[in-house]
Amino acid sequence: MVENNNQAWLDEINWNDDGLIAAIAQDKESGKVLTLAWMNREALALTLAEGRAVYWSRSRQGLWRKGEQSGHIQSIEELRLDCDKDAILLTVTQHGGVACHTGRHSCFYTKLDGGNWTITDPVLKDPKDIYPDKK
Amino acid sequence: MVENNNQAWLDEINWNDDGLIAAIAQDKESGKVLTLAWMNREALALTLAEGRAVYWSRSRQGLWRKGEQSGHIQSIEELRLDCDKDAILLTVTQHGGVACHTGRHSCFYTKLDGGNWTITDPVLKDPKDIYPDKK
Repeated sequence: MVENNNQAWLDEINWNDDGLIAAIAQDKESGKVLTLAWMNREALALTLAEGRAVYWSRSRQGLWRKGEQSGHIQSIEELRLDCDKDAILLTVTQHGGVACHTGRHSCFYTKLDGGNWTITDPVLKDPKDIYPDKK
Repeated sequence: MVENNNQAWLDEINWNDDGLIAAIAQDKESGKVLTLAWMNREALALTLAEGRAVYWSRSRQGLWRKGEQSGHIQSIEELRLDCDKDAILLTVTQHGGVACHTGRHSCFYTKLDGGNWTITDPVLKDPKDIYPDKK
């Protein structure tokens, strides 16, 4: 595990039963909330060490360097912790302006409108061009 | 349980094993991320029905009408769902400008600075004045 010598800041976190903390990424430029993902201790340590968002993929059960396939990395501008110490807020610069695997700026592109979830935000980049190796 | 007749929008959500979804509240005016909390199906239905944030308190295992003691309710301006359908983004008007029980605007008032968590945001209202019945 890669960590700073001083690990006290990691010890202060209230990790959940799975050893994870929720991590919200907010775009520095647009102010939009981009993603909600999860980090384990190693992912958070790497996020600080590498200056880019590194998450823990619960579905793949492995580290997930955001943008490793797409190039849409999230550079860290600021890290904040909430009062319960069980949520992190990342202020990020979103490379490519696209955080979502659907090619949209934010993953929160679906709005409740008249009792129905309605997609409101445009696709900025075709996912086929983001993930050319996927079929 | 209070729900709209049309429950399809609730059925679309990927509730976690505890029947909950993460709910981020973002202030419409300041753009700040205020809180990360959790909702069960009833809390989310009530949030829409009442036009104010109603959460599920995991510690108290009960419904939590945000602001029920403090008056610092969160009026709902918009509800969004993410691409995984396991996180909600609430755009809110934060009454009193104080979302945190510490009397601060946001719960994310602690910033990582030089490897240490450092409180950066001011207390806007003394918690003793927010919760006068608490000792």
